[in-house]
Amino acid sequence: MAKQADLDDFLVPYFDEGKKKDPFSLDHFDPRAKPFSNGSKDADRARLSEIGLLLDNLQERLHAQRKRRVLLVLQGMDTSGKDGTIRAVFHEVDPLGLRIVPFKAPTPVELAHDFLWRVHSQAPAAGELTIFNRSHYEDLLVPTVHGELDADAFQKRCCHIRQFEEMLAYSGTTIVKCMLHISKDEQRARLQARIDDPLKHWKFDVSDLEARKQWDAYQSAYRDALAATSTEYAPWYVIPADSKTHRNVMVGELLLRTLDGLKLEYPPAKESLKGVKVE
Amino acid sequence: MAKQADLDDFLVPYFDEGKKKDPFSLDHFDPRAKPFSNGSKDADRARLSEIGLLLDNLQERLHAQRKRRVLLVLQGMDTSGKDGTIRAVFHEVDPLGLRIVPFKAPTPVELAHDFLWRVHSQAPAAGELTIFNRSHYEDLLVPTVHGELDADAFQKRCCHIRQFEEMLAYSGTTIVKCMLHISKDEQRARLQARIDDPLKHWKFDVSDLEARKQWDAYQSAYRDALAATSTEYAPWYVIPADSKTHRNVMVGELLLRTLDGLKLEYPPAKESLKGVKVE
Repeated sequence: MAKQADLDDFLVPYFDEGKKKDPFSLDHFDPRAKPFSNGSKDADRARLSEIGLLLDNLQERLHAQRKRRVLLVLQGMDTSGKDGTIRAVFHEVDPLGLRIVPFKAPTPVELAHDFLWRVHSQAPAAGELTIFNRSHYEDLLVPTVHGELDADAFQKRCCHIRQFEEMLAYSGTTIVKCMLHISKDEQRARLQARIDDPLKHWKFDVSDLEARKQWDAYQSAYRDALAATSTEYAPWYVIPADSKTHRNVMVGELLLRTLDGLKLEYPPAKESLKGVKVE
Repeated sequence: MAKQADLDDFLVPYFDEGKKKDPFSLDHFDPRAKPFSNGSKDADRARLSEIGLLLDNLQERLHAQRKRRVLLVLQGMDTSGKDGTIRAVFHEVDPLGLRIVPFKAPTPVELAHDFLWRVHSQAPAAGELTIFNRSHYEDLLVPTVHGELDADAFQKRCCHIRQFEEMLAYSGTTIVKCMLHISKDEQRARLQARIDDPLKHWKFDVSDLEARKQWDAYQSAYRDALAATSTEYAPWYVIPADSKTHRNVMVGELLLRTLDGLKLEYPPAKESLKGVKVE
């Protein structure tokens, strides 16, 4: 249980209107750290298998009960490992109980609506475990870095996000948000690896290099976004993610703690089925 | 390659306007047969793991290429194993490349539209592998058994389905349709097992017993539906499914042959990336 207590050391302090100027910094979190490692990659992989089976069982209960909704939001710089995390952590979970929603750059139709429109329609239903691979936070980060959102508009958007997430939570949705935190050096290595392998060119877009040039602006936008939208009902966690195995184990532990906390039980047996013989 | 040839023995003869009266019968297919078994359950499981890895690679190419679309339609009586097939066959496939669409009884909004409306909106996009867990065929089978669709209306709906599927195929969608074929005895055993295990009551609805009473009507509706909608561009296969491991291997072999046939390649390397060094 010691580990579970530690997860809270990676929780972004909750937004507090009165303390807007509180110094929260991503620098407090070392992307290379492995606080949830079990000592070796093999031990981490073994633990991840264990977590996978537990998550599978919890997800079945969630699905059987059809009461709660669970939403995992994954954010992070390019190559931070959003896709890899989903694959590794949920490998054992029944695909029938999982819905993965990737958010790309908004289409013209999406842009013709408010920024939460396309997100709301993808919110999890009762009994569903939904993963947002990128999310409404892109619509906060990208326009900020591109200079299309000034400080007031940024805070207004954060306010709308808090209200939206509070409404989801109030309606029975458990929300967990993870920022996969990699170092600039690690991103260089991962981008270079994609460039050096022609079979991976399809994963690569020249705009990735443009975004990398704005690394500091993105980090600063992330800091402000996390500080303004980490709440009791939709907390943000910073996941040290330079090590892929560590990243997977830590996200797995977090999900496990979250689902465990819901005290999910199978629905009671149906009395009407007692002794029924199928003809 | 001998096996692959055999798959065609389970292909429902293509619809032919001129030969409407052709005797096609589900009785030709023994639900207990295991024509694709490798000799033992263990050998079947080993083959399925192999298939899983191959499908994973093929799906990655499909995704990388973003040209073709693939649609697998799964139909079958209650307990025939649609959920189990999806889980077993696609266990190794990256969940990011897979979209599973369950179709339940239509909602009032869905019923307010034509029967293909809700289906069309879920059709796969370029690079996607989509699985329909039940499908537009429910809207053919259920109303027929309930006496709400007469022979003419039934044939009209089949015609609309053929035209719809032809349009999808013409637009780059590869369609494969599987009917998971179980025996009435096997269904009895599976329903009874659900009743006898209180933890499985949530999977059970009394209406399942009502549908079972109409077993013969459903079999006959299936026969007519398959006969009228198996086409070169959207063929139906009958999968002997009393044995779960056999069912999984056979659906896996079929998908493998289908994806293999698409000659999926990674997109060519981008010349512009040659020698690029990330700063």
